[in-house]
Amino acid sequence: MQCLSSSDSEVRNLKITISYSGRDLHGWQIQKNALTVQECFQNALEEVIGCVPDIKGCSRTDTGVHANMYVISMKTEHRITCERLKAALNRYLPLSIVVLDIVEESDDFHARYSCKGKRYVYKILNREVRDPFSDGYALHYRYNIDVDMLNNAAQDYVGTHDFTSFCTLDKREKGDFTRTVKSFSVWREGDFVYMSVEADGFLYNMVRIMVGTLLKIQQGKLAPDSISDIIKAENRKEAGPTAPACGLYLDQVYY
Amino acid sequence: MQCLSSSDSEVRNLKITISYSGRDLHGWQIQKNALTVQECFQNALEEVIGCVPDIKGCSRTDTGVHANMYVISMKTEHRITCERLKAALNRYLPLSIVVLDIVEESDDFHARYSCKGKRYVYKILNREVRDPFSDGYALHYRYNIDVDMLNNAAQDYVGTHDFTSFCTLDKREKGDFTRTVKSFSVWREGDFVYMSVEADGFLYNMVRIMVGTLLKIQQGKLAPDSISDIIKAENRKEAGPTAPACGLYLDQVYY
Repeated sequence: MQCLSSSDSEVRNLKITISYSGRDLHGWQIQKNALTVQECFQNALEEVIGCVPDIKGCSRTDTGVHANMYVISMKTEHRITCERLKAALNRYLPLSIVVLDIVEESDDFHARYSCKGKRYVYKILNREVRDPFSDGYALHYRYNIDVDMLNNAAQDYVGTHDFTSFCTLDKREKGDFTRTVKSFSVWREGDFVYMSVEADGFLYNMVRIMVGTLLKIQQGKLAPDSISDIIKAENRKEAGPTAPACGLYLDQVYY
Repeated sequence: MQCLSSSDSEVRNLKITISYSGRDLHGWQIQKNALTVQECFQNALEEVIGCVPDIKGCSRTDTGVHANMYVISMKTEHRITCERLKAALNRYLPLSIVVLDIVEESDDFHARYSCKGKRYVYKILNREVRDPFSDGYALHYRYNIDVDMLNNAAQDYVGTHDFTSFCTLDKREKGDFTRTVKSFSVWREGDFVYMSVEADGFLYNMVRIMVGTLLKIQQGKLAPDSISDIIKAENRKEAGPTAPACGLYLDQVYY
């Protein structure tokens, strides 16, 4: 049931920070016939406050993508404290979703439109054999990854560019394909290789295509210095394939 | 189908090192009406070599317990190389089980009887809220754990003792309840607390009761110096509860 608003009640604007495992979920946005984070969250809200306020997520995420941090904004007239709302939602949410924090924000805060940037991390299991504990949580890449070489190559992503070559053509993306990448890092921790990218915004599948392009460089099918030319081409076909969703984590959302 | 042996064939004795997530498995040992590691492994072997040799596991593990390392020994007349057997088994095993290594051993090697010691690690998520990525893979304990205090208290486990107080009474355990604990460590990494224990052998549920006893000390319901007295009592009722299986990992098996 949607929440009704009465003009004389005090409306609070809440910033809700959650984390979720996307392995068994179909991304954020509500869909018919597929379980999404938004649907689970709305169901938990209905249990706790008796109706579903209009909630805003900080971004769409695809099926199988994870979030170490994801932000929701929500206006409500309900008087439950932030601390009690957090505890109650965590009782009703599935174990794949958890509320980390709830705070009251100013009236104009919006999870998506107030966002100044995001950081994504891509996780790769880099050893010969797969790992039972990483199934659904990392891409398995069995040949040795040269992290120094890829980290150098990836510095060409940094800066303000038209990233058309790194966007799955989709009617959801309109207008400006220019984004500013603030940093890109590739590093190893034991059997895992991580790639992290921070930008003011991301096009559809942008991180996964950036990762797929780096892996094509690793395979020797693209030159290490090819990224600048791929960007200039403004052509999706010049870049590498879209890396699988399972390795991708929304890691930080900046306001 | 069981493998038949012919007296004139060369028999090799293989040491197979695996890792598995126990979240959706009912421990090692084959059971009716419940999927176990042994059954999955035998099924994969039957696909690869056409019959099921007599395989020996290094220990029983309970439902929900994980293994970073677990060792199987197996005698076979099949001539497949170790490297090809590993690759083939990894194709047929479920994603929750992986073969890490296969080597040929001397004829008298036995996964269980040749074992000189093991190390278990217990993983605890120690923060207020649960974590979607640790569900089934760590005990969630929401109150702050004093790792220095518990690490000090746990040193009383070290040495050769009768560990009757730390054994679930069970007809599977017979005879000598004396074991030698070589080391016990408690440490923190971010939101996680780890407890590791190495011993020449373990009684049924011994690690989980040791962990449960430390958590009872953390709660102030047992004194930090009470472990020696609990050992001396040789009475299961003096120790703390059995900690949940989900946090327990067989981590090393020594030969």
